[in-house]
Amino acid sequence: MSEPARKPPESLQDSLRQVERLLTKHRLVDAALNLAGQADAEAVPVDPVDSLVHEQSLTELRKKLDRLHPVDIAHILEALPPAERHIVWEQVSGDERNADILLEVSDAVRETLIADMDREELLAATEHLDTDELADLAPDLPSEVVQEVIGSLDAEEREDLKAALSYADDEVGSLMSFEMATIREDVTLEVVLRYLRRFDELPDHTDKLFVITKDDEVLRGVLPLERLLINDPDTVVAELMITDLVTFKPQDDVYEAAQAFERYDLVSAPVVDDAGQLVGRLTVDTMVDVIREEADSEVLNLAGLREEEDLFASVLKSAKNRWPWLGVNLLTAFMASRVIGAFESTIAQLVALAALMPIISGIGGNTGTQTATLIIRGLAMDQISYASTGKLIRKELAIAVLNGLFWGAVIGLITFALYRRLDLGLVMALAMLLNLLVAALAGLFIPMSMQKLGRDPAYGSSVLLTFTTDSMGFFIFLGLASLLLL
Amino acid sequence: MSEPARKPPESLQDSLRQVERLLTKHRLVDAALNLAGQADAEAVPVDPVDSLVHEQSLTELRKKLDRLHPVDIAHILEALPPAERHIVWEQVSGDERNADILLEVSDAVRETLIADMDREELLAATEHLDTDELADLAPDLPSEVVQEVIGSLDAEEREDLKAALSYADDEVGSLMSFEMATIREDVTLEVVLRYLRRFDELPDHTDKLFVITKDDEVLRGVLPLERLLINDPDTVVAELMITDLVTFKPQDDVYEAAQAFERYDLVSAPVVDDAGQLVGRLTVDTMVDVIREEADSEVLNLAGLREEEDLFASVLKSAKNRWPWLGVNLLTAFMASRVIGAFESTIAQLVALAALMPIISGIGGNTGTQTATLIIRGLAMDQISYASTGKLIRKELAIAVLNGLFWGAVIGLITFALYRRLDLGLVMALAMLLNLLVAALAGLFIPMSMQKLGRDPAYGSSVLLTFTTDSMGFFIFLGLASLLLL
Repeated sequence: MSEPARKPPESLQDSLRQVERLLTKHRLVDAALNLAGQADAEAVPVDPVDSLVHEQSLTELRKKLDRLHPVDIAHILEALPPAERHIVWEQVSGDERNADILLEVSDAVRETLIADMDREELLAATEHLDTDELADLAPDLPSEVVQEVIGSLDAEEREDLKAALSYADDEVGSLMSFEMATIREDVTLEVVLRYLRRFDELPDHTDKLFVITKDDEVLRGVLPLERLLINDPDTVVAELMITDLVTFKPQDDVYEAAQAFERYDLVSAPVVDDAGQLVGRLTVDTMVDVIREEADSEVLNLAGLREEEDLFASVLKSAKNRWPWLGVNLLTAFMASRVIGAFESTIAQLVALAALMPIISGIGGNTGTQTATLIIRGLAMDQISYASTGKLIRKELAIAVLNGLFWGAVIGLITFALYRRLDLGLVMALAMLLNLLVAALAGLFIPMSMQKLGRDPAYGSSVLLTFTTDSMGFFIFLGLASLLLL
Repeated sequence: MSEPARKPPESLQDSLRQVERLLTKHRLVDAALNLAGQADAEAVPVDPVDSLVHEQSLTELRKKLDRLHPVDIAHILEALPPAERHIVWEQVSGDERNADILLEVSDAVRETLIADMDREELLAATEHLDTDELADLAPDLPSEVVQEVIGSLDAEEREDLKAALSYADDEVGSLMSFEMATIREDVTLEVVLRYLRRFDELPDHTDKLFVITKDDEVLRGVLPLERLLINDPDTVVAELMITDLVTFKPQDDVYEAAQAFERYDLVSAPVVDDAGQLVGRLTVDTMVDVIREEADSEVLNLAGLREEEDLFASVLKSAKNRWPWLGVNLLTAFMASRVIGAFESTIAQLVALAALMPIISGIGGNTGTQTATLIIRGLAMDQISYASTGKLIRKELAIAVLNGLFWGAVIGLITFALYRRLDLGLVMALAMLLNLLVAALAGLFIPMSMQKLGRDPAYGSSVLLTFTTDSMGFFIFLGLASLLLL
């Protein structure tokens, strides 16, 4: 009899450490062999015992990898620098595992893994894939491999693959799978149960069966497995099927589909074309990935990174990912610097201004970012309607006034304590209040305008915001100082 | 016969707009009534026709709300300012819907809704809840309501509730449900199928049945519904059940559990205690919420917001959410300002320095944030082991040198063009290179040290980082200027 099932998943951190330990061992053996080779440089053959140890360290690694889930190997590969990644990838055995891992790793890492494989290995790995998985990998595969794979498909699979490849990455069609369990509405549950017993397996995440018409495969409803299981076998499907259901179209936005999965707690949902014909199926595992990727790209975009980076990508590749942002920032920084340049004579008369001005611009940037972050999130979650904009503006301005009065007073007092000049303290307090108002307005309107213009408010909002709060901060502070202090 | 099922989910934005339109209509009627009331201030009763129109506008709203899914009403409530939210909440009919909505809204909004309900309404709403749902709401309910609800539970439910409440928010125990379909291992599938037909419904997201021992309820394995459906009814459960499975303990971290759901594409998973007894069940819908909340809090923390804000929270409440960050920023800004203060005599001699220094500090802050964001993400996904730290440091420093040389040269040339001073251009270029190195190191080590100290690297990293790149930027630039230009 089997053991009681009590196996908490091994933590990823632990698996990673073990693999790293095995790699270190392997490297040490390697180094020892090289040293030995150098010592007797005159082509004395390497000691066979050493060579055995070398082989053993790899065998141990391979055994460890064989015990790991492909998802976890994918994770470990992402966490390893190129040389180690290469060694581990070579030890992963099994074409199906290779394929599963390729599907799991990030795009950046996938590229490096595919570069390590020759034509035969790629063909062997892709041969087990479903059409929708093939469609995921195809853009990253060498084109002659893709051609050869397409050649090996039957007509229907080729149709499916062509369909899947025709949709953009952000369309539901690109993520739907073609494996579905379908039934007719005029049969009894008993018949359905007998029909299912003819399957070797059901498609992943089958929580409902799709009820379609016989001739044109129009979706009539769905039969949740629950209803199949709890009801009398003599009942007819049509009596139990749900007809009021959530369906998607292939051209729907994937992120909106993912939100619908999240809101309605779906496990799977049918995809139908304009004629109501069933064309595919979305499942929760894919949608979870969409949610995760969307959240990740929000964080990355806020920091001005174009895309996810392989942590161990080449220096040049990483630099390229970061340059556009750096260039734009440099430009806006120079523009803000010109605002200060216009007040050089003021600063020359009172150098303390130079030390104080970054405080005004800095706090403005920070509070503006807080407001913008809340607005960007509200927009992403469809929580900001133009009807409520007025209320939001009034609220954010009120917070700015409150903060400006309180923190302005604090700043003014500290300035007075430092420089013993009451008028300088007053200018600081007033500039703080005004720049917080600027920051609140910028934090509100920049993301909202980006959204109206059809752009992603997370990407680019923050450069524009900092530029506004910096330039205006310098202008307000130095302007007030020119007017009131000199 | 039922209609073909082709109902794409109505977009949230559309539902929200419709509700807002009805609210506006209601408000206009309201205003008209008030005006009428003021015109004949001498207590002339309001025209019954107007009053009818008034009633009608609410009826229309109620009808619209009745057609919406509770999740969508929750969403609309979050997107409405307090007065409108109150009107809509009053029109939501049905105690079960009230309860479902309360479970869906964010904590901040839930508070405002509960404040609108009296004791009877709260008792009526909570009466339909499962124990685990009750545990979710309990912390937000008035304590006398909680007492009364507990009084109405049977002994087993009370035990479950006590257990659920005893776990911290970040422990699996706080999110597990107690509704499970369990079977014995020595029966045939036929028996299982007959047993299930006695249920009125299965627990949500039942994709597998839990196989437990008769006496002590120790988990022996799970039987996926798929295996139940595709196999011969005469097979015994023990032959088909999976014993090599992912289980969780009540004290496990919820975020790690959610990551396991994501990695292994789970729909449900058993929770067992140390003795191997089945105590509860986790489902993918709850785990998706965990993933979403974790991602949200990462974005909010990066912007220095302590927690999610009700978009329409009171000004004072919102200000409080933002103050700690503002205070810390003010402090660090003043400290950086003191660095400049130390170089006042240098600036007095060459005022151009005041205009140029924010460029150096700003670019440092931006590149540091890029590095830190990648590191924070790598840490969150367990992709950074201490074995690979050395490689990461070398890589980030190499990028900094590359960027420093290229962008430093650009900056140096622009400075030369603006001020016609070659030495000033050189100082800019050199300061840029050095501050990018500082930024790379700060972006690496600040989040990694935070993590080592057991703190959340997303929260606080960015203040420390900006402080470092600002102070060091000013120090490097003004220091070099003092040495080389004067």
